[in-house]
Amino acid sequence: MPHKPFHLAAFMNAGPMGTVGWRHPDARDDFLSAAYYTQTAQLLEAALFDLVFVPDSLAVPRSLGGRFDPAVRYGSGSPRLDPIPVLSLMAGATSRIGLAATTSTGYNEPYNVARTYATLDHVTGGRAGWNVVTSFQDAEAQNFGHEALPPREQRYARAEEFLEATARLWDSWSDDAIVQDKPTGQFGRPEAVRAVDFRGEYVRTQGPLGVPRPPQGYPVIVQAGASPSGRDVAARWADVIFCSHESIESAIEFYSDIKALAQKYGRDPDHVKILPAAAVVVGDSVEDAQAKHRAFEDLVEPEAGLSRLAYHINVDLTRFDLDGPLPEMEVAGVMGHYREVLEHARAKNLTIRQLGQWYGARTEGYLVGSASDIADGMEEWIDRGAADGFMVVATHVPTAFEDFARKVVPELQRRGRFRTEYTGNTLRENLGLPRPARDEWRNRAASTLKEKP
Amino acid sequence: MPHKPFHLAAFMNAGPMGTVGWRHPDARDDFLSAAYYTQTAQLLEAALFDLVFVPDSLAVPRSLGGRFDPAVRYGSGSPRLDPIPVLSLMAGATSRIGLAATTSTGYNEPYNVARTYATLDHVTGGRAGWNVVTSFQDAEAQNFGHEALPPREQRYARAEEFLEATARLWDSWSDDAIVQDKPTGQFGRPEAVRAVDFRGEYVRTQGPLGVPRPPQGYPVIVQAGASPSGRDVAARWADVIFCSHESIESAIEFYSDIKALAQKYGRDPDHVKILPAAAVVVGDSVEDAQAKHRAFEDLVEPEAGLSRLAYHINVDLTRFDLDGPLPEMEVAGVMGHYREVLEHARAKNLTIRQLGQWYGARTEGYLVGSASDIADGMEEWIDRGAADGFMVVATHVPTAFEDFARKVVPELQRRGRFRTEYTGNTLRENLGLPRPARDEWRNRAASTLKEKP
Repeated sequence: MPHKPFHLAAFMNAGPMGTVGWRHPDARDDFLSAAYYTQTAQLLEAALFDLVFVPDSLAVPRSLGGRFDPAVRYGSGSPRLDPIPVLSLMAGATSRIGLAATTSTGYNEPYNVARTYATLDHVTGGRAGWNVVTSFQDAEAQNFGHEALPPREQRYARAEEFLEATARLWDSWSDDAIVQDKPTGQFGRPEAVRAVDFRGEYVRTQGPLGVPRPPQGYPVIVQAGASPSGRDVAARWADVIFCSHESIESAIEFYSDIKALAQKYGRDPDHVKILPAAAVVVGDSVEDAQAKHRAFEDLVEPEAGLSRLAYHINVDLTRFDLDGPLPEMEVAGVMGHYREVLEHARAKNLTIRQLGQWYGARTEGYLVGSASDIADGMEEWIDRGAADGFMVVATHVPTAFEDFARKVVPELQRRGRFRTEYTGNTLRENLGLPRPARDEWRNRAASTLKEKP
Repeated sequence: MPHKPFHLAAFMNAGPMGTVGWRHPDARDDFLSAAYYTQTAQLLEAALFDLVFVPDSLAVPRSLGGRFDPAVRYGSGSPRLDPIPVLSLMAGATSRIGLAATTSTGYNEPYNVARTYATLDHVTGGRAGWNVVTSFQDAEAQNFGHEALPPREQRYARAEEFLEATARLWDSWSDDAIVQDKPTGQFGRPEAVRAVDFRGEYVRTQGPLGVPRPPQGYPVIVQAGASPSGRDVAARWADVIFCSHESIESAIEFYSDIKALAQKYGRDPDHVKILPAAAVVVGDSVEDAQAKHRAFEDLVEPEAGLSRLAYHINVDLTRFDLDGPLPEMEVAGVMGHYREVLEHARAKNLTIRQLGQWYGARTEGYLVGSASDIADGMEEWIDRGAADGFMVVATHVPTAFEDFARKVVPELQRRGRFRTEYTGNTLRENLGLPRPARDEWRNRAASTLKEKP
């Protein structure tokens, strides 16, 4: 088997790195400053990462009994700065790395979101990515005037319309619409610009967008989404899929399902890049790395872990006996997280309280070992068809990224698995993704649209 | 009379500088690049401006017969990048200058806007400002699923609720809520954070905000608004008021009205800074400046001017005889612009078509002359009680700002009218504005709330 090179994204909160990450002795505490973000982005660019990925949440979580106290007390899921200024600062401090942020389709309007990402794409020369989420917390819905989270099916239906409206807005100017001819006074070619007139059930917009077509055609579309409807949307729209798995087996199942779905929708499966989360703890030896990992786990407060779990799955765990097992149920929150947790709880026979303790320190897909062990692990996932690369999650910032950059990246390069310089100018080019032609969305949307009653 | 020092803001589009500004031989054409914005911000910071001000519009204007063709053809009101990434890039390239952007209360949600500006204020160390607008174009409403622009009264009622909700969100964390005590694992003090539970007629939000209280307490609130309801909102909420006048007399009337209103609402009138627009054309002599101005006016295409006027007042001028006078009417758009135009049309006895020609090259409050003439003009406005400073509008970027920085700023400094270094760290400090204590909004809102039925 040839050595297939792979892609690396870096997962970084616009805020403290979770209930434990901020407590780490090496963790920076200046997450409200520009320098925290620009310096980390520069470190990741020097390590040749494809992109930085900033998740988001539109509420201080109220996961245990509707109270936000644990979130504030433990720094769990809060604070979360607006990712757009954060990403823009990173953009100004770098020149090659891709920059993706999370923006919800639930509590925004397509015109604004299309414009924000088109702007980012222009000012970065084609380095922008949008992680499309529907948002999953009741507390988020309540920050936007709703009584509770809308049902999953409605959220996905809105997301679908939202994506279509957004793509149409990006396509409202042809790539050559602006001429700026000073002598004749012609700024643009009106015949190269058109309205959008999108009238959906959930979103409407007339267009055209007030910003020309982005350099990448569309910014890179990132999605997570392990539920069946999430997979379906991702297979049609996503350029990059972020996921998390407790085992390589479930990762392989997910990978092959998504690639098959993408093919079914007429896409080249290689144009959907699947990046499972990898929380990397690098040591000089296995023992050293394991000691680092244990020291990290020792920082967990049990209530903080429970609060985090409750927040991720949007289930108020105080409804259950904390010393009993986690019941099977329909969760409104992140289905992928719930399934992993259930899988883990059964394998280890854990109570809810014990799960909380474990979940507090958990970041997806731990890889603990020497640089060589971690490279081995990553190669296995790539070669067995579980991944096209990884979303590297830092246990704490910046040290965990520094360790990865200094130790693991050179090892991957030595094995011919990772670039030794940026070869593309845009994020799409570095990811090996084609630039969508105008109206490319029509092809992707077509199959679903036909299925609609 | 002592030499009262004054404040300077710089008005700069996140896009081309109007239908004529982009055509100027010296105008940069790279308004889609980061460098265009960061270099201009650095130039303005070197000249010690208090702040950069970025206006906004959420549509390609469709001002003449519902068509957007003239806007594209002449670069009139479009493109307009999202000001937030633009401002964030400027933030990364500077360290002292204030940064204000325009965000509409009509097509956003308080949680998002409060978070965006709190984020900007944190990452800039207290240099953020928010220009609160209700938006005035039908084309904007139609980009957000409405059939037409909501009535003015509804827009202002929503803006009022929006401001209150936003202030409450900024106040949801006390200034000392975050402790980040690594040894004990206490991140924040839950007792220092509270919900918002704002339930208005137009906007609702539960809170708390996911971002701690901004360094400035509240970002600097900027407003324009010449209508009676606009003045009322501005007198209660605004720290900085941006306005435009065709004569010093109307500026004095506006200035004294606002200051009296502010006092009526229990505010120190000196804590509302009024900055009329000043479009400055500097020459080595009056004749040189006038020649520059004429050359600029010669670049106007009549249809472009008409389109711009129609867009600003949100009136489809093709409904009228273009060779007749501009009728008196209720306009849905910017009342201040309409009044100025009417004043000018009557004074000069102009038809609508002639007005269009004039309006195409017009930027508010022209000052044309040598540096000394311009300083004289500015001093007169300050000393006669028409202004606390000026919003300097560039006819084109960056040359017009360069001229101002190189010629007028030193003249103002020589006269003791302008700072020779930044003395404050935050925008509020440089503007001479106090930092609002937590719940300061209650005092300002109280008088109105009592008047409500």
